[in-house]
Amino acid sequence: MAGDSIGKMFKVTVWGESHGPSIGAVIEGCPPGVELDLKRIQEELNRRKPGKNSFVSSRREEDRFEVLSGLFAGKTTGTPISVILRNEGFKKENYEDMGGIFRPGHADFTYQAKYGIRDFYGGGRSSARLTAPVVVAGAIARQILCSEHGIEILAYVKQVGSIESSVCSDEVDPRVLLESPIDFPDRDREKEITLLLDQLKEKGNSIGGIVECVVRNVPAGFGEPLFGKLDADLASAMVGLNAVKGFEIGNGFRCVHLTGKENNDEFTVVDGKTVTSTNRSGGIQGGISNGMPIIFQVAFKATPSISQKQKTVDIYGEKQEIEIRGDHDVCVAIRAVPVVEALTAIVLCDHYLRHRGQCGE
Amino acid sequence: MAGDSIGKMFKVTVWGESHGPSIGAVIEGCPPGVELDLKRIQEELNRRKPGKNSFVSSRREEDRFEVLSGLFAGKTTGTPISVILRNEGFKKENYEDMGGIFRPGHADFTYQAKYGIRDFYGGGRSSARLTAPVVVAGAIARQILCSEHGIEILAYVKQVGSIESSVCSDEVDPRVLLESPIDFPDRDREKEITLLLDQLKEKGNSIGGIVECVVRNVPAGFGEPLFGKLDADLASAMVGLNAVKGFEIGNGFRCVHLTGKENNDEFTVVDGKTVTSTNRSGGIQGGISNGMPIIFQVAFKATPSISQKQKTVDIYGEKQEIEIRGDHDVCVAIRAVPVVEALTAIVLCDHYLRHRGQCGE
Amino acid sequence: MAGDSIGKMFKVTVWGESHGPSIGAVIEGCPPGVELDLKRIQEELNRRKPGKNSFVSSRREEDRFEVLSGLFAGKTTGTPISVILRNEGFKKENYEDMGGIFRPGHADFTYQAKYGIRDFYGGGRSSARLTAPVVVAGAIARQILCSEHGIEILAYVKQVGSIESSVCSDEVDPRVLLESPIDFPDRDREKEITLLLDQLKEKGNSIGGIVECVVRNVPAGFGEPLFGKLDADLASAMVGLNAVKGFEIGNGFRCVHLTGKENNDEFTVVDGKTVTSTNRSGGIQGGISNGMPIIFQVAFKATPSISQKQKTVDIYGEKQEIEIRGDHDVCVAIRAVPVVEALTAIVLCDHYLRHRGQCGE
Amino acid sequence: MAGDSIGKMFKVTVWGESHGPSIGAVIEGCPPGVELDLKRIQEELNRRKPGKNSFVSSRREEDRFEVLSGLFAGKTTGTPISVILRNEGFKKENYEDMGGIFRPGHADFTYQAKYGIRDFYGGGRSSARLTAPVVVAGAIARQILCSEHGIEILAYVKQVGSIESSVCSDEVDPRVLLESPIDFPDRDREKEITLLLDQLKEKGNSIGGIVECVVRNVPAGFGEPLFGKLDADLASAMVGLNAVKGFEIGNGFRCVHLTGKENNDEFTVVDGKTVTSTNRSGGIQGGISNGMPIIFQVAFKATPSISQKQKTVDIYGEKQEIEIRGDHDVCVAIRAVPVVEALTAIVLCDHYLRHRGQCGE
Repeated sequence: MAGDSIGKMFKVTVWGESHGPSIGAVIEGCPPGVELDLKRIQEELNRRKPGKNSFVSSRREEDRFEVLSGLFAGKTTGTPISVILRNEGFKKENYEDMGGIFRPGHADFTYQAKYGIRDFYGGGRSSARLTAPVVVAGAIARQILCSEHGIEILAYVKQVGSIESSVCSDEVDPRVLLESPIDFPDRDREKEITLLLDQLKEKGNSIGGIVECVVRNVPAGFGEPLFGKLDADLASAMVGLNAVKGFEIGNGFRCVHLTGKENNDEFTVVDGKTVTSTNRSGGIQGGISNGMPIIFQVAFKATPSISQKQKTVDIYGEKQEIEIRGDHDVCVAIRAVPVVEALTAIVLCDHYLRHRGQCGE
Repeated sequence: MAGDSIGKMFKVTVWGESHGPSIGAVIEGCPPGVELDLKRIQEELNRRKPGKNSFVSSRREEDRFEVLSGLFAGKTTGTPISVILRNEGFKKENYEDMGGIFRPGHADFTYQAKYGIRDFYGGGRSSARLTAPVVVAGAIARQILCSEHGIEILAYVKQVGSIESSVCSDEVDPRVLLESPIDFPDRDREKEITLLLDQLKEKGNSIGGIVECVVRNVPAGFGEPLFGKLDADLASAMVGLNAVKGFEIGNGFRCVHLTGKENNDEFTVVDGKTVTSTNRSGGIQGGISNGMPIIFQVAFKATPSISQKQKTVDIYGEKQEIEIRGDHDVCVAIRAVPVVEALTAIVLCDHYLRHRGQCGE
Repeated sequence: MAGDSIGKMFKVTVWGESHGPSIGAVIEGCPPGVELDLKRIQEELNRRKPGKNSFVSSRREEDRFEVLSGLFAGKTTGTPISVILRNEGFKKENYEDMGGIFRPGHADFTYQAKYGIRDFYGGGRSSARLTAPVVVAGAIARQILCSEHGIEILAYVKQVGSIESSVCSDEVDPRVLLESPIDFPDRDREKEITLLLDQLKEKGNSIGGIVECVVRNVPAGFGEPLFGKLDADLASAMVGLNAVKGFEIGNGFRCVHLTGKENNDEFTVVDGKTVTSTNRSGGIQGGISNGMPIIFQVAFKATPSISQKQKTVDIYGEKQEIEIRGDHDVCVAIRAVPVVEALTAIVLCDHYLRHRGQCGE
Repeated sequence: MAGDSIGKMFKVTVWGESHGPSIGAVIEGCPPGVELDLKRIQEELNRRKPGKNSFVSSRREEDRFEVLSGLFAGKTTGTPISVILRNEGFKKENYEDMGGIFRPGHADFTYQAKYGIRDFYGGGRSSARLTAPVVVAGAIARQILCSEHGIEILAYVKQVGSIESSVCSDEVDPRVLLESPIDFPDRDREKEITLLLDQLKEKGNSIGGIVECVVRNVPAGFGEPLFGKLDADLASAMVGLNAVKGFEIGNGFRCVHLTGKENNDEFTVVDGKTVTSTNRSGGIQGGISNGMPIIFQVAFKATPSISQKQKTVDIYGEKQEIEIRGDHDVCVAIRAVPVVEALTAIVLCDHYLRHRGQCGE
């Protein structure tokens, strides 16, 4: 009932607050006998870590995860996997005096309105810090998907402010992404972006961005009508992510301008397999995967934590002004890339197991 | 586990196929003692009915709903409300010969791939016909929301093809909508759209569109972190709706271009109440309503059912050509307006009851 | 959230009230492609029907079920199966004047206390009439279990009042049960029971009883720790059944008197298969089936509907006396036999699909 | 889907294995602003701790719990409460050589059959050790129930082997229980039991028992028809507890012998409140609390861990003999008393919040 979990058969429950002693997740429904590569999980976690470039928050998060249950001799046992990450390296005093002041664009006011109480240190429960256990869970889901169906998930920054990558989703080169400090596939325009980010950082400002995600080798048949559609579940996962204001799949909002004739993906046969000639639908039809690559885009607003002066109100209803101290992401979309991948993996793994349960294999 | 339900406390389970004997919904969790206005529910259902204008499918759906349980002397009893709608007025022979042929842009192929069997008459389970019981459930949710908090939900067509309404959400006049055959708030541009729709209809083609929805008087506090956020649940409901390819809340994808300074909604106090000066976030922050109007947009692709010739494949893997007969919507977004309202009501009513359970009143 | 459903992957949602226009169930998660034998389902339903003997309520229930969705050409499609049963043959006037009076032993008072309103005709939502759609759903579950694993479920009356069957569970003869008007396996003592029932009927009184259920051919591995144990789910299903006051599995309450040495089932090997030499645990260990027959017992209280005069109170808090008219079951346990089987089938089918989803096949 | 959680609105997810680094629970749905008395929670946990008497396992469990989230300045924030308990004080070498041998009466075989892999140290996931986080969660539920409605839960040992307490539930004196090393309310017969336990311990054997639980001050109205009944949920919680083989409510299996006239609880009015003159139903009618004390009994089998020689089989299908070393409970029912109370509190708190959500307050 409470909204702390994602997934039904592969289910991840995330607990914790930004500046509590630790945060973690309980991962249920993982099939037994899967040999987990813990090193790869840590690598995923490291991608999320601040410090890969200078435009993300420089809070030193150690982000070492520990597995407390559900593993035996390196293999999953089918019982819940509990993962924990210690919260270290933050300075509580940076936040203390903001306890009563609602930061614009943040969830301070809405948490206070809902619960009448909130852990305000570092945003408490609403902090993006909570995406760290999500990345761990996603990395586990990924290993299952990869070993069972060779499913591959690749997300990257598509746009920062008004600077868009010109590389289409089919031509994104993972090696270019690895070398890019901002997970951007278009080498030519990367410079423009880093320049923009430098300027914004200096001014204590931030900027929005778009993350694109492509999933390959998903078999046709994942997803459930009417309210468990694969695209609906991806939308829910993405829009639920901090700072996200939009989600679109396939050609998304661009489909509005097209006629049925222009927009429909015609079917054809290639190597004895039914495929679509185009992929405007983004790999999902009627909420169920059709075997084509799944492609979607996620719009992130600029980080609301800016050091420029802003008007606001405190919990006593008094008007206040605020300048948010501390190092914050200039473009939160950049740091969200591994989280988008992780959530995608969780949603897909859940639907894989649900499909196996209902339809067998 | 199966995806046939939406909501947790206010829960709607929809069953049926387009051309089966009937379709319906089981509505659970409705508070007891609510005096239901059945006539208003029927009015909502009539709005969805084809025939309001000449651009939507002219299938004659009787769409009389019957309540089979959960009501006593006109009031809800707190037990499940079962509603049923007879399927009448369709011609099975229009569909019969399409049984083995996958219609482009439809869910024929993915259902076949998932289940190995499907009811192909009129799209079976994947038909938009299934939104009729959703509208009934939504009308019930609406009466609860309205009586408890005076919550008002208003959706309308924002754009058809490339023709956009110039009326901003604050100035939409419900009377204009009532008079508009296409639920369009901008009288000046309505003519352009009807002209476009006439042309497309003649050519046996269709077009995409955008529906905008505004919800007023939602108290601050509805929605649950981390995976039960109000915007995430709205996104899931909308993206799960037939033909939807995109969802955005507040300024949505437009936020990408803005800096934090430009995008943040500053807090202020009006009449002793904490509000935001602007509403770029669309009424939700950190997944929880902030008391401002909730505003979101939904992108619909063009109806894939077009009478123009299309290439496709049948279940035997043979290439085929198809021309889809029958009267179909030229712009499915238009007909979706009451469904968007209904789903919004269901999501909000669910969160109202969840909030009441956890936090009291 | 509401308690109208049983099962997670094989999920049955039951709606309706005793004297409403109809009652029904939505059955979700049924695997696709199963050829349903509708005649056998009707036979199961007929077993529940009053009139098989003279000791059960003589209300003439037609109990014809209709399938409204989820079937195509006789096979399941994997989408929800909606079943409906018309309510006919009752006399509303028998109940009308009891609206305000709480019948002792019934749920009249508790429904009123919970909801502040209730459909009082024939017990409304709390009526055993609601077990009819459960029997339909159970019959479907049974066909899945039988075709997949040859699982067989057999329930029968073990005891009426103080008269107990002397036939042990291994020696119950299904043919004897078929011939017995009271589903009693012990021919020698059947006479005693029918005599007792005749006497009670004459006096307008009723009596308690025990139903025993044996399930054969369940593979080892169904059930989930810690809170989804197979025995816990059976207990929940049974104790939730009207008039049930106790549940025990294996040797049940008798285990209290035994030492560990006396009670443990030792393992041995038979035909290369690990089995237990005894089956005191009743086929489930640690909440998971062990491959041995599952055996449990369910205690039913006497029908509270008796024509003898009883003291009670009405909704205005006034003391009243009541004599309940109409034909009622003398021993409700007898009529519950097919319902116990149906619920068992639902629980097992749910766990079969859950196991297949998590652990594969 | 996985069975690791109990409750829907007040939801407890338990993770961990007996001999893993730690075990814990995530408690969701706790209302915000509740001032938790952590000392009382620890006291509850201490009651479960072995060593209160000489008849329970002498494994030295430290059982210090730590709260990692969901608390702020001593109050609940409405976000998940994560609790963790370190596993310390066990000797892995006691268990190592039993890895491949199935202990009779334990879940070793069924876990192996289900998952194909299991953590065998100390019973792994199936160990009663996992009831420790349940006690913590229950202690939290209890504080909510007590502060909101003054609800009081009292469980005690009713019977050990064939020695039964003669004190009826109304006359149980909590002070006697506090002084009793075995939570037994009948001072006169306590000696008999401790003698029996001494003898069994010497012989390396064990014995069954019954725990009775009484809940006072539950308002009428908790519980949901048809499959969310309060008694059904209690049955599920209890039968899911390690070593439980039976559950009965009110007069339970004894009701079988009674006529409707003898068994019905007549209603009357006391101090303007509708009550029943007797309480054979055990405080629940139609699955909903009626305001009378809730009374139920739980049957525990003898601990299967006995040091006497037993026949069994190993994972290779070879016959083996086993003598289980280590200190084990002579009567596991005794140690289960606080766990029965905790599970009862969790079930009731869940239904309290569900009721508040649907019906308001």
